Amino acid sequence: MRVVELIERKRDGGKLTAHEIDALVQGYTKGDVPDYQMSAFCMAVVWRGMDAKETAALTASMVRSGERLDLSRFGRVVDKHSTGGVGDKTTLVVAPLVAACGVPVAKMSGRGLGFPGGTLDKLESIRGYRVDLSTAEFLAQLEQIGIVVTGQTADLAPADGKLYALRDTTGTVPAIPLIASSVMSKKIAAGANAVVLDVKVGSGAFMKDLASARQLARAMVSIGVAHGLAVTCELTDMEQPLGNTIGNSLEIAEAVETLRGNGPADLVLLTRAAGAEMLVRGRKARDRKSALARIDRALADGRSRRWTIRRSCRERRGSRHFGRHGPRTCRR
Amino acid sequence: MRVVELIERKRDGGKLTAHEIDALVQGYTKGDVPDYQMSAFCMAVVWRGMDAKETAALTASMVRSGERLDLSRFGRVVDKHSTGGVGDKTTLVVAPLVAACGVPVAKMSGRGLGFPGGTLDKLESIRGYRVDLSTAEFLAQLEQIGIVVTGQTADLAPADGKLYALRDTTGTVPAIPLIASSVMSKKIAAGANAVVLDVKVGSGAFMKDLASARQLARAMVSIGVAHGLAVTCELTDMEQPLGNTIGNSLEIAEAVETLRGNGPADLVLLTRAAGAEMLVRGRKARDRKSALARIDRALADGRSRRWTIRRSCRERRGSRHFGRHGPRTCRR
Repeated sequence: MRVVELIERKRDGGKLTAHEIDALVQGYTKGDVPDYQMSAFCMAVVWRGMDAKETAALTASMVRSGERLDLSRFGRVVDKHSTGGVGDKTTLVVAPLVAACGVPVAKMSGRGLGFPGGTLDKLESIRGYRVDLSTAEFLAQLEQIGIVVTGQTADLAPADGKLYALRDTTGTVPAIPLIASSVMSKKIAAGANAVVLDVKVGSGAFMKDLASARQLARAMVSIGVAHGLAVTCELTDMEQPLGNTIGNSLEIAEAVETLRGNGPADLVLLTRAAGAEMLVRGRKARDRKSALARIDRALADGRSRRWTIRRSCRERRGSRHFGRHGPRTCRR
Repeated sequence: MRVVELIERKRDGGKLTAHEIDALVQGYTKGDVPDYQMSAFCMAVVWRGMDAKETAALTASMVRSGERLDLSRFGRVVDKHSTGGVGDKTTLVVAPLVAACGVPVAKMSGRGLGFPGGTLDKLESIRGYRVDLSTAEFLAQLEQIGIVVTGQTADLAPADGKLYALRDTTGTVPAIPLIASSVMSKKIAAGANAVVLDVKVGSGAFMKDLASARQLARAMVSIGVAHGLAVTCELTDMEQPLGNTIGNSLEIAEAVETLRGNGPADLVLLTRAAGAEMLVRGRKARDRKSALARIDRALADGRSRRWTIRRSCRERRGSRHFGRHGPRTCRR
């Protein structure tokens, strides 16, 4: 196989077989295919797209480039993903809320890609917070406190990690097959049983209009289903920033306020919807109505905030967190 | 300037200023802009194209990346260029023919790009032939024997040399602005006063149809004129191989036969047309008719073949050439 021929075929609007895509991805992961060929290929994909079969093959190949976690001993594990938008701090609220309601949450987040800030960047504004857990630490934390939100470990979908960084510097981010396979390969490799996706639509997001957002949603759902995951996808508005704050530490503070029951209306609306869906998917609620009731109780009694901070502090004595009176140091 | 923003603007169909293009090209030449960004940019240019202003800026910037030869002491120096096609050995016939008629020929050729073989590859099938002359050697040979056909020296348009190699491995060859600026930057830097261009059209060439060939011809002529060169461009047929042979050494042998007056009709036709144009441009003939008569006399008396071999041997005693009885060793 000559890589340049695959690039040329995609450039000319042709299709690649699953075998060819796999050779490209594994070659790139191992360093046999250089960055400059991969970036030209990615630009050709931005131009010409990929069909459902090619996108599924790309995802499967990225999953195969590393380990795939087996989380079956934790019961139903639920993941969530937002395509990102200005002020989007949903993960920071929903993940502890759902975990406090008994659903194990195992989530690998990303850094900012393009203009929206990334969950990892926001989490790092908490002093002492580590986003570089190893796979063993990832599993241990899920076991001990029932929630883990960290960066992508080097063992999981390493092809995606490498490609993600390349795309960010080569103007090849906005291609639906590349976005969909990047998101879903991480979810599949990380071993969740169900995923709740949130595709942001509007001027503050990658998807500027409903049509392209729908296309991305369909691409991600079909990849997930093909890999045996239960997938739900919401399309939500990003014509204005979410909540009242933008900026890493400000967004952390707003997320903590929301967990205390004092969140802005738009963020609470999203949190309730995504949280309820995660409870249903995690089989901790019979239906959406009872799930919403549990979420509302959790928000009202502030349990998830106390719960998360208490649990986290047990793990990391001496690290600092945001509390009622601003940042403070936790001691056992 | 953030390179990724320039890539994104081109990807989205926007235009770059001359200043931005120059920063990109000089940065790439110095190694500040990595290959993987340049290849993504080139793919975006294949997709979106460049307007005349951008193409002129790209060419000027590639010329500025290195030296520009001053050949004024040689009088009118004429260069030729063919965009290449299957069996295209015109340079191997026309260059010595025109030089034998008194016009200094200073030509830098390229290797095969895509499927057609390159003039350099063909010349290297002559044992002892060097295609890596330095600028000093280039000038000395032009001084001594009135003809030089060699590879691109490292001092002339180094940005183009680097970009040419990158494009060949990243599927970014077939973009008219990239082809036109690559060809013309070499011609301008090499100091010729006039250039005769031959754009091949058909299934055996890069330009498959007349419309795109015309577009490329116009792009090259306008770049040349902007830099003070006299430029003629022919569009010639490449629906079938040129002449009767394909393959490096076979094509050299056929070129030698043509110089002896025994060439195939299609190659002779092209040779006469390009040669006559070069004589007129080099001011060794009043008009096309008298130029054609001189070319015909030179072809009939075989002077250019004898002349070239004799002169070359004087330069490189002991090197081997193709002659009447196959390869032979020349001794003074």
